[in-house]
Amino acid sequence: MSDGRKRLVLDLDTGVDDALALAYALGSPEVELVGVVCTYGNVTMRTAVRNTCALLELLGHPEVPVLAGADRALAATSPFAPPAAVRRIHGENGLGDQPVSGRCRCAPGDGVAFLRDELRRAEGDGAELVYVPTGPLTNLAHMLTSIPGLADALGRVTFMGGALAVPGNVTPCAEANVANDPAAADAVLRGGLRTRMVGLDVTHQAVLARDDTAAWRELGTPAGIFLADVTDHYISVYEENNPLMGGCALHDPLAVAAAIDPSLVGRLPTNLRVDLEGPTRGRTVCDPDRLRDEEKTCEVALTVDVPRFLGEFRARVARALA
Amino acid sequence: MSDGRKRLVLDLDTGVDDALALAYALGSPEVELVGVVCTYGNVTMRTAVRNTCALLELLGHPEVPVLAGADRALAATSPFAPPAAVRRIHGENGLGDQPVSGRCRCAPGDGVAFLRDELRRAEGDGAELVYVPTGPLTNLAHMLTSIPGLADALGRVTFMGGALAVPGNVTPCAEANVANDPAAADAVLRGGLRTRMVGLDVTHQAVLARDDTAAWRELGTPAGIFLADVTDHYISVYEENNPLMGGCALHDPLAVAAAIDPSLVGRLPTNLRVDLEGPTRGRTVCDPDRLRDEEKTCEVALTVDVPRFLGEFRARVARALA
Repeated sequence: MSDGRKRLVLDLDTGVDDALALAYALGSPEVELVGVVCTYGNVTMRTAVRNTCALLELLGHPEVPVLAGADRALAATSPFAPPAAVRRIHGENGLGDQPVSGRCRCAPGDGVAFLRDELRRAEGDGAELVYVPTGPLTNLAHMLTSIPGLADALGRVTFMGGALAVPGNVTPCAEANVANDPAAADAVLRGGLRTRMVGLDVTHQAVLARDDTAAWRELGTPAGIFLADVTDHYISVYEENNPLMGGCALHDPLAVAAAIDPSLVGRLPTNLRVDLEGPTRGRTVCDPDRLRDEEKTCEVALTVDVPRFLGEFRARVARALA
Repeated sequence: MSDGRKRLVLDLDTGVDDALALAYALGSPEVELVGVVCTYGNVTMRTAVRNTCALLELLGHPEVPVLAGADRALAATSPFAPPAAVRRIHGENGLGDQPVSGRCRCAPGDGVAFLRDELRRAEGDGAELVYVPTGPLTNLAHMLTSIPGLADALGRVTFMGGALAVPGNVTPCAEANVANDPAAADAVLRGGLRTRMVGLDVTHQAVLARDDTAAWRELGTPAGIFLADVTDHYISVYEENNPLMGGCALHDPLAVAAAIDPSLVGRLPTNLRVDLEGPTRGRTVCDPDRLRDEEKTCEVALTVDVPRFLGEFRARVARALA
């Protein structure tokens, strides 16, 4: 039976801000985290599984199943390995090079089978199922192909990725998650799914400073100290790369936040596509062929109530770390 | 003495949609058209002067002064000549190859001197001065350099140009007006002026079909017949280039409309810059260095109430043609 809470499935390439997103989700009373599907991007998919298991254990929720997902882009012929710049941002181990312990206890089956089962369960007991990817959209593209009727069965997908009105972070046009698998993002955005894009337009406005990590450390809990150390690594890289920002961007937590409470972000209803070729490869852009369609499948977050989001972020992460 | 109407200065590269913008302005009771500064783009600056004079005469307002403006981009060493694709869209003469008569009676002085005088006059009698460029922003960039305090003295500038969330129309990233002088657009957008961008995001949603031109022709007036013939040429090129659109985009008239009644468009307050180099040259994009500034100098139109705009367009152009 459903207890009234939304059921949340996260799809993580578990680096630093994925860890913060996981904490945000676990500290949110409105949702029950029913599973984490892993993917590649900030780390390899296998490292994402290991990091997710360790974080769930540390945050007191070892019961949440962790699923293996895609280890490469739709068109790739070998598993994805993060480039040097990404390894520097998230650390070689994806968690700021802080020691990561814990057994890797990947649940049986894969992400696609897991989502199919969860959809069936939600249909059975009337619960709402929310899917939030914060890495490349490869898993979701596989699910769209493999699960008939997915676009109708699944509620609006809130994903971290893309850059509509701002420059990208890997090329002038492309954001990293979309750049890692433009074809998957395009399949998701043009596949009939309802989506909510939380991209660099808003995540670059949501900045966490060292005051907050200091507060976590003062909690004195293993989880508080670990998350503070991991996040300080991330902030220190931002201080070198983006000295004017005054902290790190809260990319992935903002997607979880906007999935739970969309009113945190101002949204443009539109239809998107992804550029697949040439110098704009990986750009998310309004689809000119569907510009005048009455139906808009995507809501793109363009503004964010930063003080309110940061307030929620502090309260929820503190709850997860307590 | 001010009669309470806003004073409007248009800055046109007078091709087909500039002609429609001129008619919209002359048919709008809220504004007094006090002058037209000419520029290059759809045609040469000299042809823009000739076309503007002819249109003002045809529309019964030969008293409106027409000013010579920039004939080339800030960095260009020779006058601009429109490329073949542009000559096809607007016709070799800029007005659908319909016969254009009338003397060229350019007013003395140039656009910069004219605007300086109009600002002084408006300050003297308390009138509001509205400047609406529908071509490259070269004239306005010159004014910004030559008129001290312009950013404070001039009300919000509503310009047709740019593409924020949609593809460009001359490259995947660049819209034609901005592409013709990216440095001028960047100087305007980062020069402290308050601006309102009416770009392809909205103008590609505002489509005029042949029903409307047929109605103008039925008026039987020389102006009605001329504007119908000119616009039918424009629509026929759209029918070849964009067969799914079902008509032509009302680029420049929508800028005039949004200058008079901003509530016709939904607007994102932001700060813009223009990419000046590389494959994204000419792209209008949110300036990451000012993304978190409280002050937003630009409002970008992202949605448009198409039925209401078309209603206003029909009524006002009909009034100008009567």
